[in-house]
Amino acid sequence: MKTTNPIKFHEQLHGKIVVSSKQKLDRDNLSLAYTPGVGEVSMAVAKDKDKIYGLTGKQNIVAIVTDGTAVLGLGNIGPEAALPVMEGKAAIFAEFAGVNAVPICLDTQDTEEIIKTVKNIAPAFGGINLEDISAPRCFEIETRLTEELDIPVFHDDQHGTAIVVLAGLINAIRLTGKDKTVKIIISGAGAAGLAIANILAAYGFTNYCICDSKGVISKDRDDINGYKKTTTSNSSASCPVGKCADSLKGADVLIGVSQPNQFTADDIKKMNRDAIVFAMANPIPEIMPDEAFRGGAKVVATGRSDFPNQINNALVFPGLFRGLLDNRISKVTTEIKIAVAEAIADIIEKPTAEEIIPSIFNKKVTKAIANSVAKFKK
Amino acid sequence: MKTTNPIKFHEQLHGKIVVSSKQKLDRDNLSLAYTPGVGEVSMAVAKDKDKIYGLTGKQNIVAIVTDGTAVLGLGNIGPEAALPVMEGKAAIFAEFAGVNAVPICLDTQDTEEIIKTVKNIAPAFGGINLEDISAPRCFEIETRLTEELDIPVFHDDQHGTAIVVLAGLINAIRLTGKDKTVKIIISGAGAAGLAIANILAAYGFTNYCICDSKGVISKDRDDINGYKKTTTSNSSASCPVGKCADSLKGADVLIGVSQPNQFTADDIKKMNRDAIVFAMANPIPEIMPDEAFRGGAKVVATGRSDFPNQINNALVFPGLFRGLLDNRISKVTTEIKIAVAEAIADIIEKPTAEEIIPSIFNKKVTKAIANSVAKFKK
Repeated sequence: MKTTNPIKFHEQLHGKIVVSSKQKLDRDNLSLAYTPGVGEVSMAVAKDKDKIYGLTGKQNIVAIVTDGTAVLGLGNIGPEAALPVMEGKAAIFAEFAGVNAVPICLDTQDTEEIIKTVKNIAPAFGGINLEDISAPRCFEIETRLTEELDIPVFHDDQHGTAIVVLAGLINAIRLTGKDKTVKIIISGAGAAGLAIANILAAYGFTNYCICDSKGVISKDRDDINGYKKTTTSNSSASCPVGKCADSLKGADVLIGVSQPNQFTADDIKKMNRDAIVFAMANPIPEIMPDEAFRGGAKVVATGRSDFPNQINNALVFPGLFRGLLDNRISKVTTEIKIAVAEAIADIIEKPTAEEIIPSIFNKKVTKAIANSVAKFKK
Repeated sequence: MKTTNPIKFHEQLHGKIVVSSKQKLDRDNLSLAYTPGVGEVSMAVAKDKDKIYGLTGKQNIVAIVTDGTAVLGLGNIGPEAALPVMEGKAAIFAEFAGVNAVPICLDTQDTEEIIKTVKNIAPAFGGINLEDISAPRCFEIETRLTEELDIPVFHDDQHGTAIVVLAGLINAIRLTGKDKTVKIIISGAGAAGLAIANILAAYGFTNYCICDSKGVISKDRDDINGYKKTTTSNSSASCPVGKCADSLKGADVLIGVSQPNQFTADDIKKMNRDAIVFAMANPIPEIMPDEAFRGGAKVVATGRSDFPNQINNALVFPGLFRGLLDNRISKVTTEIKIAVAEAIADIIEKPTAEEIIPSIFNKKVTKAIANSVAKFKK
């Protein structure tokens, strides 16, 4: 298809995924795949539920579930408008990892009803990829479903982004000769920002402050909700009240998951030598790469494909689910997330300013991630 | 695959359907199919919800929804055990009509919760195929979802079977020179039996009696529930209390959707000359074809592929949904069901005792059905 216009591209495709039969159906196999032969198969599963894994496709199919409340950076645009994104994810699941994935766009934004609906549809799926659900509801939904289901549940906006950020940071640290004591400022306290802080803390990067739209999240502020409070309490840094840009003084790392154009070259100049800047607001970053470099940054990553070092959660979810499904791992633990980040980082043998993370077209990625997950097989 | 053992067949396939990307993803199209390009597409749908039809695959994807309460003739074996059947249907949808279909096996058997769950997942689907849900819950679920959703809802066990029965009966009548006044006995008052009675009555075959497990459903019985009562009230026949087999005296047509081995050759002998026998209990019919012929039947149909005249709802649902989806028809009316039955009957130019209905491998079937549905486009 030769168009570069997204609307025309989608009109021409009229759906980005296709469901097909694994086998051409003929007189011989139809009576096995369907009635009467399939009755024996259903009875075998009825007698031993676990046989669903060997006798059906449950082990290789994921529901991509959204309520359309936080679609890309576009906000609460509803389940219909979320479908193009979910179809795109399903196409990526198929192409990069051979995982069957189905968009499930929910006509409810009620936390309890989302949980109930996902539990109700779970029997035919091997995993649940939660997507574009707004904070703080996404935290409870993921936590509850993880507890109450026996298949893996993964909220990509939180952990997909967090895993790639950790991978990039591991290599940026190698490149700049810094260590785990680096001072980190996270701009953005939504689903991604808090998940990034959590994985960094778990990995040993505890010297961080988080900013929300009102500035630095400080112990001295009394307007901080439960999730933000918990996450900041794991930090070893002192984070005084103030503007986010001012908090960059003496920082080594800036991680932006917030809004376009938050910072200038002058802000970056306040940071320590060889500053590391991940500016992931999409499509317009918190600071453009050339501006960040002008302020003295050593390495810059964005969410965009037209600059080096694209931080894209599409790097993670195909291989992660490949590993989870193949090994029937039912909980995505922090240890698994860290192992995946390390596996991604390790793909780059010699990090440079232009390459701290692999491209999603790097053929090694899916396999490396799936192998790192396989080690957690029970 | 060379096995004839259904278990081995399913073990080897490990899932009967596959989800793939319509296009190979590369650097050029990934930024259109996914971020950043897809954002513009989502915004277009957010501004005009109806654009979901042109810009996504909603128009060609069906949810096959079951709660596992009435799987084949196996009863309430649960959602996991239902999955092999639903996957088989999805494979048939794909192969015979190019419809994308996804098994949704529900972990609830509560009517209200089923309705709520299906409504919650509806935005990304173009149609709902209800399947293997027990009576009488299936009636309310289908009625309510039809009223409350703007996409077509079709309970295949009721209407798929009823449509093929009507198609077969139209040609059996042609073959035997009988007319719409024929006396019909329907053995079985579940989802299929009642739907058959309803479509026959709507078509003008009003001279029928229905039997349940206790015998003929008569006005003189006081143990008849609401749905059975409504359906029998449309009959113009007098149906006295008694054994089902005894009611065959003077009947022209026996339609069985009940249990194996209900009738003998001697029972068929009580019927009128050139009796028509559809014995659809699966895998063992109410009466075997040779036994029915010994009793004087002129034409016999079963649910089995190893006898002539297989009454199989797989004949209907692929073409029906092809027509509904292509023409965005949101309600499956009685008129549509009758038109589909006539279209199926018309495929057989000259009915014989061995061929009153086409094989599901007859290439004309899907197109003829879809065309008959297209006439109802608004």
